[in-house]
Amino acid sequence: MCSRTMASKTPVGFIGLGNMGNPMAKNLVKHGYPVIVYDIFPEACKEFQDLGAQVTESPADVAERADRIITMLPSSPHAKEVYTGANGILKKVKKGSLLIDSSTIDPAVSKELAKAVEKMGAVFMDAPVSGGVGAARAGNLTFMVGGVEQEFNAAKELLTCMGSNVVYCGEVGTGQAAKICNNMLLAISMIGTAEAMNLGIRLGLDPKLLAKILNMSSGRCWSSDTYNPVPGVMEGVPSANNYQGGFGTTLMAKDLGLAQISATNTKTPVPLGSQAHQIYRMMCAKGYAMKDFSAVFQFLREEESL
Amino acid sequence: MCSRTMASKTPVGFIGLGNMGNPMAKNLVKHGYPVIVYDIFPEACKEFQDLGAQVTESPADVAERADRIITMLPSSPHAKEVYTGANGILKKVKKGSLLIDSSTIDPAVSKELAKAVEKMGAVFMDAPVSGGVGAARAGNLTFMVGGVEQEFNAAKELLTCMGSNVVYCGEVGTGQAAKICNNMLLAISMIGTAEAMNLGIRLGLDPKLLAKILNMSSGRCWSSDTYNPVPGVMEGVPSANNYQGGFGTTLMAKDLGLAQISATNTKTPVPLGSQAHQIYRMMCAKGYAMKDFSAVFQFLREEESL
Amino acid sequence: MCSRTMASKTPVGFIGLGNMGNPMAKNLVKHGYPVIVYDIFPEACKEFQDLGAQVTESPADVAERADRIITMLPSSPHAKEVYTGANGILKKVKKGSLLIDSSTIDPAVSKELAKAVEKMGAVFMDAPVSGGVGAARAGNLTFMVGGVEQEFNAAKELLTCMGSNVVYCGEVGTGQAAKICNNMLLAISMIGTAEAMNLGIRLGLDPKLLAKILNMSSGRCWSSDTYNPVPGVMEGVPSANNYQGGFGTTLMAKDLGLAQISATNTKTPVPLGSQAHQIYRMMCAKGYAMKDFSAVFQFLREEESL
Amino acid sequence: MCSRTMASKTPVGFIGLGNMGNPMAKNLVKHGYPVIVYDIFPEACKEFQDLGAQVTESPADVAERADRIITMLPSSPHAKEVYTGANGILKKVKKGSLLIDSSTIDPAVSKELAKAVEKMGAVFMDAPVSGGVGAARAGNLTFMVGGVEQEFNAAKELLTCMGSNVVYCGEVGTGQAAKICNNMLLAISMIGTAEAMNLGIRLGLDPKLLAKILNMSSGRCWSSDTYNPVPGVMEGVPSANNYQGGFGTTLMAKDLGLAQISATNTKTPVPLGSQAHQIYRMMCAKGYAMKDFSAVFQFLREEESL
Repeated sequence: MCSRTMASKTPVGFIGLGNMGNPMAKNLVKHGYPVIVYDIFPEACKEFQDLGAQVTESPADVAERADRIITMLPSSPHAKEVYTGANGILKKVKKGSLLIDSSTIDPAVSKELAKAVEKMGAVFMDAPVSGGVGAARAGNLTFMVGGVEQEFNAAKELLTCMGSNVVYCGEVGTGQAAKICNNMLLAISMIGTAEAMNLGIRLGLDPKLLAKILNMSSGRCWSSDTYNPVPGVMEGVPSANNYQGGFGTTLMAKDLGLAQISATNTKTPVPLGSQAHQIYRMMCAKGYAMKDFSAVFQFLREEESL
Repeated sequence: MCSRTMASKTPVGFIGLGNMGNPMAKNLVKHGYPVIVYDIFPEACKEFQDLGAQVTESPADVAERADRIITMLPSSPHAKEVYTGANGILKKVKKGSLLIDSSTIDPAVSKELAKAVEKMGAVFMDAPVSGGVGAARAGNLTFMVGGVEQEFNAAKELLTCMGSNVVYCGEVGTGQAAKICNNMLLAISMIGTAEAMNLGIRLGLDPKLLAKILNMSSGRCWSSDTYNPVPGVMEGVPSANNYQGGFGTTLMAKDLGLAQISATNTKTPVPLGSQAHQIYRMMCAKGYAMKDFSAVFQFLREEESL
Repeated sequence: MCSRTMASKTPVGFIGLGNMGNPMAKNLVKHGYPVIVYDIFPEACKEFQDLGAQVTESPADVAERADRIITMLPSSPHAKEVYTGANGILKKVKKGSLLIDSSTIDPAVSKELAKAVEKMGAVFMDAPVSGGVGAARAGNLTFMVGGVEQEFNAAKELLTCMGSNVVYCGEVGTGQAAKICNNMLLAISMIGTAEAMNLGIRLGLDPKLLAKILNMSSGRCWSSDTYNPVPGVMEGVPSANNYQGGFGTTLMAKDLGLAQISATNTKTPVPLGSQAHQIYRMMCAKGYAMKDFSAVFQFLREEESL
Repeated sequence: MCSRTMASKTPVGFIGLGNMGNPMAKNLVKHGYPVIVYDIFPEACKEFQDLGAQVTESPADVAERADRIITMLPSSPHAKEVYTGANGILKKVKKGSLLIDSSTIDPAVSKELAKAVEKMGAVFMDAPVSGGVGAARAGNLTFMVGGVEQEFNAAKELLTCMGSNVVYCGEVGTGQAAKICNNMLLAISMIGTAEAMNLGIRLGLDPKLLAKILNMSSGRCWSSDTYNPVPGVMEGVPSANNYQGGFGTTLMAKDLGLAQISATNTKTPVPLGSQAHQIYRMMCAKGYAMKDFSAVFQFLREEESL
């Protein structure tokens, strides 16, 4: 374990070079870390070869060559495969290695993976991010980190290369939990903002004035004061640009699905969280999948043609 | 109309001296206005007699003696009775009088009353308040005002005696609309906060830490950062005091009922607002009627005894 | 009052000759009753003139000439206008007249009208119908009747000309209450059927087989066994005909709005009824207004093009 | 494979002798089958020893001695353990064995188990039941069976000893799917019935009369006509006996959790199913866990003491 804490510029593995993983790994390179990469699509690695990174054939190969690895994968099954699959990390992980999973997945899966990693004498931390592709590029993501507290500083050393905020949340799985809870509340307050704005407009209020009133009152929330879903109320947000960019409805539906599964497994009532999930699910079915999640305002609104 | 705009310390009528009306009327007295009062319960007027106010027998009597009247009543039917009933204001209202209704009622009823008032040559404004009994006493309520814009300054002159914030919202009914929309969004984000906090705690997060994370992220809202519903997270809020004081669940249920009726009448979809209404309704049926509305955290939580 | 009970073929007034009122009034004619008609659209009366009916200029005129009147109107405000408006029935209603309102409206409004009618010495009954235009033509509507029990037989005499089922429900307003409760449960079980069928299909079940299993199990309901919303499962229902005909989504949304208002006024929690209302409201906003209400299956389904 | 189809009275394994498994296994004994039993609680096996059954030490032991095995377990993790655990069936299963799982679990888990079983050269079918402990004793359960169609008759031979209805649903997992869909629709229509009955009563209708009207109208469902949740409407149902007996709220919450997970995994919108899940979850948190699921009527009702 000495090697990784003493000499911090030893190589770092990075698995999963998609929309988010790509800029994150680049920020590691920028900070002077040699990186060893793998992606299921070989073409995703090319760019990194040009940057001097070692490209490998499998997660196991990465584990053989690096004792600090970051994974950034789209879903629980992918994470399981990368860690415990036939050519997974655990096939060749070294004792004392630090494995940081930045995917957003079911916290129960994070716990399973942590157990399997621990059996091999290595350390697992979950560190999902908040912030989109822009924040990944700019290196100002927020990381919510779960795992053994003594290892937090070692993780933070790497994560600060990619994010401006690295928060320790508690034992393994609590990073995921924090992210899931935040996004569930975000979805609820976004839909609530869209409903309140829509109702107010129908009752004769000017949208800008209504937003101003909400923002100085108890209805104030991030969705009303920073990311207002009504076109014309704010500039520089997806609602000002036909709901392009931002955080896609399909991604929000995915996170709400994780919240739902966690709530079901812990027998926690989440009546509005559950309804928010259904609304984003219906939006996906009705053609809004690729629009920003603030498009719920548009979804709830009467169609122009009617 | 001259009289009321030129000599501002002519008497002001006040009808409805309940929990809110009482301190509001007292603030008018403190600002040097002679007041002429009426309440359906004669004992509510006594205190004002001692303060030198004229006590009358009916709303009509008030209208006979004052050309500026403020009404503060518990619901739409009460407001209808006070304005259009057998001994209502309209029986004796003087031309040019200014009638300000601070009750929280259906905006459609405000519009009806405004029409009836207008027929008599007088002016009606709806000016519901935000802020509870404490704010009423301290004179720092927020008033959301709907009505003809030219009359707004005349209304403001009086309302600033009772509130620190007087916002012009648009035509008659928009004051109610603004209040209803704010409270609907408030209820939604409060329930959402309670769900997210509860789920996070079940998943192993420390409540204070979770609140801190939400408040620096996109889940942030007034209910999470100013009025957190989880005991132990903040001081000086109802959740720190067994949900006593604050804004009662039964009052929130009433406001959500108004939002529901407005949404039904304007055919506006409000899926979460509607569900929030049902949750507060169930809470009323299960013994939470008199607790602060943040007690939804307690309602959703597993009972200790189980 | 004698005249109307003794000589049953005295003229019957009929106000509101729309999609439903037209065939209902014709069935009265078929049964030998002279009818005296009024509709706000004069052209709606023409057809009845040709059938020998007297056409009048106002509801008041009808009340002057007939001591039994049936009204069939689209909503609460229309009903108020026809009864209590400037040229309304009550302007000229005769003592002892029997006024039967078959509109579907807020039961609280029925009670208001009943009071006003009673003051004039006449009798009011609410008698909303179940069954659509087809049942109106065939004369096999169901009438749910509220009002004084002693008058039920007099009402039944007329209503049996238009319906095969005439049920006494209790005091004034309970006819509306019964209809509203039935339609709320209908909407809930229709959406539930659509969800269950859709989920089953996604999980690999054959729709016909799934419908058969539900119908022999505890999930059985009218929407699953008589009016299945999945194309291909049954014949002769709207789902077999691109959701044309049947009971329009916009009408279901209206009835759910009435249920919601009644529930709000009586402080009754209706969490699924309320959600059903919102779903039909969203469908109206998304282009399903004129389709049969079983089209909720189509609404919940993934779009073909995705 | 011959042995099991030709000589049907060869021993049958039975794993899981709880409330349901106990009477089911006894019915096999009654039909002359020698049974080989296992339960995690040894005392659960005693009774069977007295009946002449072989008692074993593990699922693997059962698999060694019987080539037809029925499992009846409380949840997905238990089923995984019994099949794939350290002493699980798969450790010693014989080629050609028929493994029938009557547990109610996630259909995705059934599919996983089927794959694992298939790899060992054996056959897996999911066959969850409908009907409670009473039906299990009386031998008239309904089995919904998923798996390879050619094996259905072999399964049916055993299942008909325990049930009166054995329905083939399709490939592996569709038995679970059918049960989950039915119970989701059941929960929705039960809550809907409770809401409609409660609202009707508040609006002045007699509960028996309202039930009669619903049952002859389009609101009719199993919950209204066979299992009415309102005390006093029907005899011989849990609502007539303070909601004791019947199908517990906690079990319904479990099945709705499975429906929710299946819907989340297949991205199917189930807005009312999801809300029904939340309502039963809240009921569990508020002391209704052990009452029949029709107690939702009581849950929605105003408390007597208020």
